Amino acid sequence: MIRIVEVGPRDGLQNEKSILATEDKFQFISALSEAGLKSIEVTSFVKAPAIPQMADAVELFTKVNKELGGQGVSFPCLVPNIKGYETARSLGVKEIAIFTATSDSFTKKNINATVDESFERMREVCEAAKKDNVMIRGYVSTAFGCPYEGTMSVEKLIGVTKRLFELGVYEVSVGDTIGVAIPQQVRGYIRALKNEFPIGKIAMHFHDTRGMAPTNIYASLEEGITTFDSSAGGLGGCPYAKGATGNVATEDVWYLLHSQGLDTGIDIAKLAAASKFILEKINRQTESKFLRAYLNTGKV
Amino acid sequence: MIRIVEVGPRDGLQNEKSILATEDKFQFISALSEAGLKSIEVTSFVKAPAIPQMADAVELFTKVNKELGGQGVSFPCLVPNIKGYETARSLGVKEIAIFTATSDSFTKKNINATVDESFERMREVCEAAKKDNVMIRGYVSTAFGCPYEGTMSVEKLIGVTKRLFELGVYEVSVGDTIGVAIPQQVRGYIRALKNEFPIGKIAMHFHDTRGMAPTNIYASLEEGITTFDSSAGGLGGCPYAKGATGNVATEDVWYLLHSQGLDTGIDIAKLAAASKFILEKINRQTESKFLRAYLNTGKV
Repeated sequence: MIRIVEVGPRDGLQNEKSILATEDKFQFISALSEAGLKSIEVTSFVKAPAIPQMADAVELFTKVNKELGGQGVSFPCLVPNIKGYETARSLGVKEIAIFTATSDSFTKKNINATVDESFERMREVCEAAKKDNVMIRGYVSTAFGCPYEGTMSVEKLIGVTKRLFELGVYEVSVGDTIGVAIPQQVRGYIRALKNEFPIGKIAMHFHDTRGMAPTNIYASLEEGITTFDSSAGGLGGCPYAKGATGNVATEDVWYLLHSQGLDTGIDIAKLAAASKFILEKINRQTESKFLRAYLNTGKV
Repeated sequence: MIRIVEVGPRDGLQNEKSILATEDKFQFISALSEAGLKSIEVTSFVKAPAIPQMADAVELFTKVNKELGGQGVSFPCLVPNIKGYETARSLGVKEIAIFTATSDSFTKKNINATVDESFERMREVCEAAKKDNVMIRGYVSTAFGCPYEGTMSVEKLIGVTKRLFELGVYEVSVGDTIGVAIPQQVRGYIRALKNEFPIGKIAMHFHDTRGMAPTNIYASLEEGITTFDSSAGGLGGCPYAKGATGNVATEDVWYLLHSQGLDTGIDIAKLAAASKFILEKINRQTESKFLRAYLNTGKV
């Protein structure tokens, strides 16, 4: 069984300029849950002006938690600092995600902090979350490459990953934020990570900017990775990394895993319908060739 | 060194409804040659009404042969029957490509012949070509799946491949005509082919209909394949297979091979420029995410 962490509602939508109604976001999340996804990142508790699409975080999470909670699906929320954590906690969040990167230049542009400074913020959040028995997931951005610093070393990745585990995260998601990772690099970095950490606690988070995400996932599977982040319909990108559009589509991940005979527990018809719904709301075509073929032909 | 057979000018353009000027096709082929491609399929010697885009086959090949010939680049032409062969031969063609499929339903729709009947036509062509010392390449369409018959067995592929080698082809190109192949199947079929034939005489020809072509190429490399067909900019499709748009882009193949540290002899800047030129002529966007990122950023 391969675990997919659906990041569409948060990572996928956060840079969409047309602000969706909370009800539409809720319908999307509800449809994803119906499709069998067991971990769906709902929103981000940032200051509202920073990411306008996330301005309804309180309202959205409250509704999701009330109507979809307690059915075995996890609804993590991104938390950038202690203030965001306290808001999330007051709403009954059971899992949070925290984030940093391997590149100082990137974190500077993204959250106006060095990597070290980001760890100070995260430490405060994690200490509170551990007391509250809230689960914590950690993201490492620019793990393979940075738009400002170029290729990033595996040593930096290992260092940041280690510090995240020391903070108490249950899993580290290794992010190819700008979609520059290549299979050889992916295999090499995973091998190095495996030497230091249990492979089951490492997730991979690919962007399909250069069409390489499915191959990188294939290579990751060969190295024993069992958890992948993805975004329904391939929604998403990164505002701080020019041209870095496109989380890998959950449908592409599903198709690859399905073709390898690996179970995901996902109903592809329901997942495709969820993506179609949200893509129509934001008036976009999917970047997933598989999803396009599936919607055209009605079959895998 | 991995060999790429560029099929853009023929397989890529044959279904384009807007008929290109012969001069534009020539410029495209010339630019591909400049980019370092060593085998470029130029055209198809069919009856003009059958494929309008190929109506200028005589004029185009004559120009290519005169102006670009003799510089170490091979310019094969597709030949469907003895009549087409004789025309090609009269123009000094040094390499031809012949084609069949594993599926009778497909060859019936494509060339109004069963697979067996296609072999009768090909036999006549091959006997003449061998006498003339003309090199012959063989295509097998629907090797993995057929739009009418579904998944195709590896036994059929081995049978057709064997018969093509018996006709005297130097290489068999195994085609995923409708883009349904998956890595596990690709590896399994290649392993079976390796048991019967020298691996160096088997090429893979993928379509990226479901975004799986790069991963299938990665899997093929793992099995030892060293020749791939592709189409500059991802031009192409198949008129007899609904929704089967998209040969894998030569740029995508280049990016994967480059990222694996494998040499192709291709200058990516020149290749991208050739694709940009022809895509503008037919007023299309590329389906290659890598090419889009490359043209946006100007770097790999």
